[in-house]
Amino acid sequence: MGRGVEIESKYRIECGEIETIEAVLRGAGFTFEQESLEVDIYYRHPCRDMLSRDEALRLRVYSGGGGKLTYKGPRMEGGFKAREEIEISLSSVEEARLLLARLGFEEALAVRKRRRYYRGRGVIVTLDSVESLGCFVEIEAGEPESIERVESMLGLRDRRVSETYAEMALKKLRGEG
Amino acid sequence: MGRGVEIESKYRIECGEIETIEAVLRGAGFTFEQESLEVDIYYRHPCRDMLSRDEALRLRVYSGGGGKLTYKGPRMEGGFKAREEIEISLSSVEEARLLLARLGFEEALAVRKRRRYYRGRGVIVTLDSVESLGCFVEIEAGEPESIERVESMLGLRDRRVSETYAEMALKKLRGEG
Repeated sequence: MGRGVEIESKYRIECGEIETIEAVLRGAGFTFEQESLEVDIYYRHPCRDMLSRDEALRLRVYSGGGGKLTYKGPRMEGGFKAREEIEISLSSVEEARLLLARLGFEEALAVRKRRRYYRGRGVIVTLDSVESLGCFVEIEAGEPESIERVESMLGLRDRRVSETYAEMALKKLRGEG
Repeated sequence: MGRGVEIESKYRIECGEIETIEAVLRGAGFTFEQESLEVDIYYRHPCRDMLSRDEALRLRVYSGGGGKLTYKGPRMEGGFKAREEIEISLSSVEEARLLLARLGFEEALAVRKRRRYYRGRGVIVTLDSVESLGCFVEIEAGEPESIERVESMLGLRDRRVSETYAEMALKKLRGEG
């Protein structure tokens, strides 16, 4: 569980590059933490257009069981994506799905990905293979300087993308992707 | 965490009777499980009149920390109160309060009570001292027959009340109680 402001940055890569990037991370002393299969379900609010308010309600389901429910606030001004996050840990996700359904929240979109987590130099780096969207690196940190140092080290500075996976998946659904 | 149909029955007693009832329970082999101070926060849905739909969304906060978020469906026909319940356990309630606030749910009502739990003969009996509403016994079970046996044993059959604490507190607020 947690709450606070999350700062992160996302980069589009070729899926073939994942191995090279992992080698660079390990060489720089980063620790591999885990790999997980995650399904992110994004919800439609019963009476509010969360998309136009730049908000999101996401239920993340881990393949190993359990999950978390996250509210993401509007993105703030600035170089990196920063937004409020409020998170509830769930030992089982089925009750949360049912409860949301009873309150009128509809499942709008599901994003499936394999995610590998690395930690080091004050940041968390994830290597994501996202179903039908491709491969990406994400860097998350408490402050922008740490992100800048690691993106330079990985040679990713000019490959930033600002869209969320939910936005990409929505475009794809609408045939714009 | 859980989901299913809850069958329960509530009885109004004098607060001075609690001790006698506890003695009867212990004499009948019931086990005292715990006493807890609970604050139940009932929410207003952002765009739906849950009260007229006979639904409730309740965040229960335990004095010892932690809590649970519960959706209660409309009461079904029948002798005892039976309604769908969907429940999420929370190791900390603060994130849930914030998340509900961000989604537009408003805290409508708070009910504070001291509750003593007993278990035996296929039922859970709670003895409740509810702030500004008085004292009550609740019997909860999987099926009506177990409730009937225990209410007879406690001599409570003709003291059933059908209102929920939320309804009583609301009446009180409106000056009807």
